[in-house]
Amino acid sequence: MTKHYELIHPKTHLRVLSRYEIQQLREVGSDVHELVRRCCYAVLSAGSQSDNYLELKEEFRNFNIQVQQEDRGIVLSLKNPPQSAFVDGEIIRGVREQLFSVLRDVLYAQESILEAHRFDLNNGDDITNAVFHLLRNANVLKPDRWPNLAICWGGHSIPRNEYQYTKDVGYQLGLRGLDVGTGCGPGAMKGPMKGCAIGHAKQHNRDGRYIGITEPGIIATEAPNPIVNELVILPDIEKRLEAFIRLAHGIVIFPGGPGTAEELLYLLGVLSHPDNQQIPFPIVITGPTETEDYLRAIDRFIGTALGATAQQRYQIIIQDAEAVARAMKAGIAEVEQYRQSSNDAYFFNWALTIVEDFQLPFDPTHEAMSNLCLSKSLPGHELAANLRRAFSGIVAGNVKEVGITRVQEHGPYQIQGDKSILQGMDVLLTAMVKHGRMKISGDYTPCYEIVAR
Amino acid sequence: MTKHYELIHPKTHLRVLSRYEIQQLREVGSDVHELVRRCCYAVLSAGSQSDNYLELKEEFRNFNIQVQQEDRGIVLSLKNPPQSAFVDGEIIRGVREQLFSVLRDVLYAQESILEAHRFDLNNGDDITNAVFHLLRNANVLKPDRWPNLAICWGGHSIPRNEYQYTKDVGYQLGLRGLDVGTGCGPGAMKGPMKGCAIGHAKQHNRDGRYIGITEPGIIATEAPNPIVNELVILPDIEKRLEAFIRLAHGIVIFPGGPGTAEELLYLLGVLSHPDNQQIPFPIVITGPTETEDYLRAIDRFIGTALGATAQQRYQIIIQDAEAVARAMKAGIAEVEQYRQSSNDAYFFNWALTIVEDFQLPFDPTHEAMSNLCLSKSLPGHELAANLRRAFSGIVAGNVKEVGITRVQEHGPYQIQGDKSILQGMDVLLTAMVKHGRMKISGDYTPCYEIVAR
Amino acid sequence: MTKHYELIHPKTHLRVLSRYEIQQLREVGSDVHELVRRCCYAVLSAGSQSDNYLELKEEFRNFNIQVQQEDRGIVLSLKNPPQSAFVDGEIIRGVREQLFSVLRDVLYAQESILEAHRFDLNNGDDITNAVFHLLRNANVLKPDRWPNLAICWGGHSIPRNEYQYTKDVGYQLGLRGLDVGTGCGPGAMKGPMKGCAIGHAKQHNRDGRYIGITEPGIIATEAPNPIVNELVILPDIEKRLEAFIRLAHGIVIFPGGPGTAEELLYLLGVLSHPDNQQIPFPIVITGPTETEDYLRAIDRFIGTALGATAQQRYQIIIQDAEAVARAMKAGIAEVEQYRQSSNDAYFFNWALTIVEDFQLPFDPTHEAMSNLCLSKSLPGHELAANLRRAFSGIVAGNVKEVGITRVQEHGPYQIQGDKSILQGMDVLLTAMVKHGRMKISGDYTPCYEIVAR
Amino acid sequence: MTKHYELIHPKTHLRVLSRYEIQQLREVGSDVHELVRRCCYAVLSAGSQSDNYLELKEEFRNFNIQVQQEDRGIVLSLKNPPQSAFVDGEIIRGVREQLFSVLRDVLYAQESILEAHRFDLNNGDDITNAVFHLLRNANVLKPDRWPNLAICWGGHSIPRNEYQYTKDVGYQLGLRGLDVGTGCGPGAMKGPMKGCAIGHAKQHNRDGRYIGITEPGIIATEAPNPIVNELVILPDIEKRLEAFIRLAHGIVIFPGGPGTAEELLYLLGVLSHPDNQQIPFPIVITGPTETEDYLRAIDRFIGTALGATAQQRYQIIIQDAEAVARAMKAGIAEVEQYRQSSNDAYFFNWALTIVEDFQLPFDPTHEAMSNLCLSKSLPGHELAANLRRAFSGIVAGNVKEVGITRVQEHGPYQIQGDKSILQGMDVLLTAMVKHGRMKISGDYTPCYEIVAR
Repeated sequence: MTKHYELIHPKTHLRVLSRYEIQQLREVGSDVHELVRRCCYAVLSAGSQSDNYLELKEEFRNFNIQVQQEDRGIVLSLKNPPQSAFVDGEIIRGVREQLFSVLRDVLYAQESILEAHRFDLNNGDDITNAVFHLLRNANVLKPDRWPNLAICWGGHSIPRNEYQYTKDVGYQLGLRGLDVGTGCGPGAMKGPMKGCAIGHAKQHNRDGRYIGITEPGIIATEAPNPIVNELVILPDIEKRLEAFIRLAHGIVIFPGGPGTAEELLYLLGVLSHPDNQQIPFPIVITGPTETEDYLRAIDRFIGTALGATAQQRYQIIIQDAEAVARAMKAGIAEVEQYRQSSNDAYFFNWALTIVEDFQLPFDPTHEAMSNLCLSKSLPGHELAANLRRAFSGIVAGNVKEVGITRVQEHGPYQIQGDKSILQGMDVLLTAMVKHGRMKISGDYTPCYEIVAR
Repeated sequence: MTKHYELIHPKTHLRVLSRYEIQQLREVGSDVHELVRRCCYAVLSAGSQSDNYLELKEEFRNFNIQVQQEDRGIVLSLKNPPQSAFVDGEIIRGVREQLFSVLRDVLYAQESILEAHRFDLNNGDDITNAVFHLLRNANVLKPDRWPNLAICWGGHSIPRNEYQYTKDVGYQLGLRGLDVGTGCGPGAMKGPMKGCAIGHAKQHNRDGRYIGITEPGIIATEAPNPIVNELVILPDIEKRLEAFIRLAHGIVIFPGGPGTAEELLYLLGVLSHPDNQQIPFPIVITGPTETEDYLRAIDRFIGTALGATAQQRYQIIIQDAEAVARAMKAGIAEVEQYRQSSNDAYFFNWALTIVEDFQLPFDPTHEAMSNLCLSKSLPGHELAANLRRAFSGIVAGNVKEVGITRVQEHGPYQIQGDKSILQGMDVLLTAMVKHGRMKISGDYTPCYEIVAR
Repeated sequence: MTKHYELIHPKTHLRVLSRYEIQQLREVGSDVHELVRRCCYAVLSAGSQSDNYLELKEEFRNFNIQVQQEDRGIVLSLKNPPQSAFVDGEIIRGVREQLFSVLRDVLYAQESILEAHRFDLNNGDDITNAVFHLLRNANVLKPDRWPNLAICWGGHSIPRNEYQYTKDVGYQLGLRGLDVGTGCGPGAMKGPMKGCAIGHAKQHNRDGRYIGITEPGIIATEAPNPIVNELVILPDIEKRLEAFIRLAHGIVIFPGGPGTAEELLYLLGVLSHPDNQQIPFPIVITGPTETEDYLRAIDRFIGTALGATAQQRYQIIIQDAEAVARAMKAGIAEVEQYRQSSNDAYFFNWALTIVEDFQLPFDPTHEAMSNLCLSKSLPGHELAANLRRAFSGIVAGNVKEVGITRVQEHGPYQIQGDKSILQGMDVLLTAMVKHGRMKISGDYTPCYEIVAR
Repeated sequence: MTKHYELIHPKTHLRVLSRYEIQQLREVGSDVHELVRRCCYAVLSAGSQSDNYLELKEEFRNFNIQVQQEDRGIVLSLKNPPQSAFVDGEIIRGVREQLFSVLRDVLYAQESILEAHRFDLNNGDDITNAVFHLLRNANVLKPDRWPNLAICWGGHSIPRNEYQYTKDVGYQLGLRGLDVGTGCGPGAMKGPMKGCAIGHAKQHNRDGRYIGITEPGIIATEAPNPIVNELVILPDIEKRLEAFIRLAHGIVIFPGGPGTAEELLYLLGVLSHPDNQQIPFPIVITGPTETEDYLRAIDRFIGTALGATAQQRYQIIIQDAEAVARAMKAGIAEVEQYRQSSNDAYFFNWALTIVEDFQLPFDPTHEAMSNLCLSKSLPGHELAANLRRAFSGIVAGNVKEVGITRVQEHGPYQIQGDKSILQGMDVLLTAMVKHGRMKISGDYTPCYEIVAR
């Protein structure tokens, strides 16, 4: 039952657009329209098993989306949508709602953040404020909820046993009344949500939150799974990372590839800042027995690069989903107490200091990549910031359009730095390649070269 | 049980503010803080029987409001609040919710409309767009509702029998499933809501909307009554008028003073525009038997000033609340059909053309008032626009701080124009004075002089 | 727009009937069908101003009701329904819901109480249990509510100023978060609900309960007003009285006629029982200034008949609606505390001892009435029980079909007893006649004669 | 964290009990208390992997349950509850709600069905009516739902691949908006619910129904899984079967043991009745590829025993979860149309004729089992009824206390009848034993002997 043309009525979101917003969305070829088209295509591709963005180009070329005004609000018209979003010719409601989340976030970012001149996006405080406004507009800041959000990070490309383990952890989190947020793609971003949904079902919890936090560059290759019932699209990777850690009450990290490494370095880098040292923030690194060596290698790399203090921020738990959930629950109880005593909001972690090194967008050109200073002579959190950028570049070279194109043109990125650091990095990256954590399918050709000094 | 200090937790609204918004609200003496303080004071004065703003100054001077951050959102701290807002020491919930509406609207207007540079507030389209954004932010644009909003206009200072009649009309509207919006003060702005609430109760309708639309200049003397469950504060009188007629599916006009005349002239002036002539818009002018002469005088004035076409836009119904409600219901059914056939939104009347003469703020200085051209040589809707301004000035001279002060300093406004127009106006104004429609209490000294040419 | 035939779909209640229940309801002429027809007619007559049941007989004869099964539940078909239940040809939703309450209660009483042989209806404990089951089946026992139910008693036939006062009291109760229950007819049974609805509207309380408690004999002349959103029909007057006092957390008594006197005597008789003396039960007798003499006369009659202890159970408050509401609120706080400490349910006052004298149905034949022993030689609560019966008989003689017919045949009831008691009774009854509290319209011919011994 | 004593507050169900009901529940040793204790123990054992009831006896002996009255309703006190119902010392909410379902159903069956003398439980119509009342009291008859209930039957003891397949089917049903009902134990009764919960999550369907229908004899060995959010306990197996088919809009049958065979024979026996032949009733028999032979054997047995007409009532679909769900969806659309056109309720299939042979309880004594006439000389539906009884006896001999005890005492049941029928039966039973479908754990000793004549 192939449909080439589809009219989608929203059920809950964003049905009220102004005449001018609709105009903007209708201008084929405009930035806003193109961004919306790209993100909606990704949303509609949920369940597709490819992360090879270029391969999808042809199908994408034929896809289009238009917005129409009707008496009861707006309507989306889809041309040649991917069929994975439909069941017997009817769009999956989870997908439908996400389409309107895309519109909401893209329009708001454009109108009220990027063009509004209210925010100086080179200024750290203003960036934080912009992130807050984006999240508030997306209605994910819920003042009536107790702290219960466990953010789960991990690879999009993982083997079956690891996937099953992420489901087990999600199930135990859900049984304990925790909600789950992820980067909203496949693998370790989907497993915890599926498990959590079953845990919530057993608890007859009908208000479970499955929060997906993404950005336009990554959404194409990490299509949100339809369980996500609160989808937020931040304008870039740095704001997405800030959203993650200001929303989270605790973070679980599963084995992953360079994206997960980027996230971990960002998190530990921020928490290493002297101002943040008293702030409780439960972190668990976990995986099934088979991943123990890999997780220990990550731990050693953190030790080498960021030192023992950074290591004390997290627990490592091997093959024990219940223990992970109990650790999260206990850690979040401390977070609650801390915020109460300091009159901090539960729904947004204002107290966390994040310096601009972590906030300003990093564009992984070949020049920028080879200029990254990866030296132990730097202060701890600066080194963390640069390492974060290095892994961010590798993610781009692997799965983002702009990165892939650059690597095709100019060859692999050159990464330079202290030998001790680069060695640890090499060990990790080699393991990632070996485990197939770089990409879902096909042989992997590294997009980087490590050039120790 | 007098309380001098009060902490108010919101139940439903706006508990999520950014650190910067809270800062703004805390800056004693800033424009935002002063505006919030003024509007909140008005909200808390609901039920007070005075419209003499200056008399309240002393009490107002001692009143203050502060915003605090807590773990579950913000909290308001009130110093020396008016006692009419409390029952046995507990704040009335209707009032409490309205305080947070004030914060929401004042902050949004400041941040996203006035300072955001997104809107050119000298441009008509942008003004309309700004009104849309303000209403959307206040969550009064409901895409899931069928057209059912009857806006009621009429005097804040009216005798008992007229008040009872407005309740009867509200009751009949409510029985028929219509919701009510008003300018949210006392008199004809409160009666329809009380009646409507009883009508809704008989229909076991628990979702009734009682919408109050106001602006900072008028709210002080027309404190919203607590039944209002959706309060919106527009930045000025012209945007408030635009909000009224873009939201309304029909309008009922009760006898009133110069404010009501201003509203009626605005409405008929807009509808007289050639582009609007096919757009259905049910209007009923109504009152109890005793007011028939007065309503006929208004009708004649409209005939003289705007002509027979304007008169055909409304029905006059005397002392028949059921007939009024049936006329509204029937008229709104036509509105629904029209919007459906033209794919217009039910929740905002984009189709209506409003020219800038009606949109740009009018500041009633003595000079502006005496320069108003009230001549039949003008095109119809321009004359209507100027007449609207003349009555707007009289309202200011009667009950708004800025107007009262100017008249105290410079004497009454001088209103000039064609004799035929001014005669009709004089008849109306004299009747208003005679009926006590100018102010609630005290003898009335006119703030204007009519100077026929 | 007269309709002679009407199909009614329920929105919330009782749409699930068994094939056998539907059969029962369809058997024209059966007891169940006749009872349903009679009660539904009464419900549909809400707003009619007559309490002369016999006058309505002709209209009633032409009225019929039938139940039909459809795919989504049952549907009612009405033939020649009274037009007061319709607005522009559509039934008022409050009325519609009440029709289904009638079905629910009549069927349940028949099937599960009267014919089920589960309950021995000559045994006091079983009567209480039956009342409990009837109320639970009607879904009025709400375990999630704090004690807040103020039952209001008073005349159905009262002058305008008293009616306004009952509204004022209802408004003050509603402002303080209390819900209201009444006997659900006009006058003092309607006023408190209307006032309370406005109080709830100001508090933005959308869950207000307006409970009507009635019985088949009285409903015809005291048609429930449509604000009632929980209607319960008990099988007879004694079970209705028991329902009132086991549900109530406090009781307000306005001036009324013999029905109100019956209620007051029942209440004080029960509370006089030695087992009940520690149980808190707030009672306020109140009315506007003009009724002070009358209320004092009642107070004196209670003093004479039941003694000072009975008098200490209530407060008398004249013309002060706020004080009444504050007294209720404070009294109910004590009730809450008492139930908590004794692990009693909030939703049903099991602890109250009610002896069978008050529970067994009294049939006011002429013989039964003249045999009533009204003597001070009886123990207090037995005398109260007999006085209650005497007033019950007078109510029947005034407005119930069976009583009116008997009095037409056999002349007035003969009431005998001690002189001191009968004198007080005579004073009261004379005042009731004089104030027009006996019947709404027409001259009143007493249905009783007082025969002092 | 072992708890020996636990107080359970209900959240949604049955908090309102009468003093007499509480008394009944408190009488240790009474039938009601013992039945409640037994069923609650089963509910609390969810997740336990044993179906060996006798083995659990010791733990059960130490378990107790008591009911207490508190101000806000009743409270359960558990002594030595099984620990599988708790997460970190807190009871799983799904389990908690089910405890109150047990109380509700056991009390209602006792009071209003068995002892109320309203129903003659030897009369077919009254049995149907009793089933209706039990279901209505349990609030599972929902008039506001469109037909969408797929009942799933199948074995409680199944291998991993079959379990996964039942999840897949449940997922596809859930994706298509169908709800699922089962016998609420493990295996094929749990898989479809888990899958369905994920399907509902993707559709953002928060109102999914997971209905468990059970009876006191079976619940002990088929503990309801906590996903069940509507649990109903019918008094015996025959009423449970009737509840299944009067509630179902369609039925999916997975491979199972004798219990599933009993269900299938019941269903086809009823549908074979001449009065039922026009009534649409979608049935799908399905399993993964590995079960094809077994399912074909069942099909052949039906053909032999009940004939080709019975075979035409169902489709067989092998290893295609989507096709199963599509067939259900399409079949249920026909059901909807049929009920609409014949004004039948969606929520209860009154139209189905079920003769008393299928309704009257069958007690599998050795005598009754050996007296069963399994002969082709009987009319079709009588033979089906007897075959149903034979399998019912085998279920009892396998997993029910009363059956196991009898077989221990008297040896295996003797089953007699026509050779052709018994041969088919033997083939099936032998396959069931071979596949381990008789019991979850341990070697299986048949509780029956087939004695062909």
